[in-house]
Amino acid sequence: MSAAAAPCALCRDDGGLLLWRDGAWRVVRALGAEVAGAPAWYRVIASAHVAEWSDLDEAARARAMALVVTVERCLRQTLAPTKVNLAALGNLVPHLHWHVIARFDWDPHFPAPVWAPPQRAADPERLAAVHAELARCDAAIVAALSAPG
Amino acid sequence: MSAAAAPCALCRDDGGLLLWRDGAWRVVRALGAEVAGAPAWYRVIASAHVAEWSDLDEAARARAMALVVTVERCLRQTLAPTKVNLAALGNLVPHLHWHVIARFDWDPHFPAPVWAPPQRAADPERLAAVHAELARCDAAIVAALSAPG
Repeated sequence: MSAAAAPCALCRDDGGLLLWRDGAWRVVRALGAEVAGAPAWYRVIASAHVAEWSDLDEAARARAMALVVTVERCLRQTLAPTKVNLAALGNLVPHLHWHVIARFDWDPHFPAPVWAPPQRAADPERLAAVHAELARCDAAIVAALSAPG
Repeated sequence: MSAAAAPCALCRDDGGLLLWRDGAWRVVRALGAEVAGAPAWYRVIASAHVAEWSDLDEAARARAMALVVTVERCLRQTLAPTKVNLAALGNLVPHLHWHVIARFDWDPHFPAPVWAPPQRAADPERLAAVHAELARCDAAIVAALSAPG
């Protein structure tokens, strides 16, 4: 089956702005409606269509976590979020992907998870300030993942 | 400061039914209001008050993920959930803890995250059937974590 005909959204599409990939994993920045609540939302996505974290062997999990930690560190260094949220859910798209989300104490959902109802209106000025730093954050992630291990 | 006086809920209390602990980590089953939406909800909790995943060194992260994977496998083997959800959020309690949650396609929030508004009423018979298996799931986790490495 060609990728274009795949029934799984993450087999078919990158799932965001593609920043980096190797044969087994890719890192994207989310571009969909979800970023209205959390502007700096990244994903570490398996190339293979595997559903559960425990389906991976230890080496693959260690590799994925090294990528997740690299993304988290870049978020912390460039955006200084209040907290970073990590999650592998996959109920709608059971294709392993880690959400790595910068949270800010002023964001619409904080301190609730981004999936909970918003607690306040978005703050356009603060959102714009984060948006203005995203290219720098993206570049930090690309540089960190492209550096010789 | 004594544990009883700690300002952090996860420094002060176990955070659920304590199943297993060593010097660095503990595993609990959630007992609070959250289990109305997801009856088989476990947590892997750091003993130390550390906020972010990337604050841990690689060995500590590997150890935590081994515990998370063991819990996930026990959930899959004893409860056959539709999906397992993993998350480290910590916005309210910035003390590192991994949620390991069995999700069922009939549960109130599925396929949305457990933190999203419910999509349907709880199904008392199916919930009771999961509740009836929790002791077996707890025991499987205790046995797996207590087995000689």
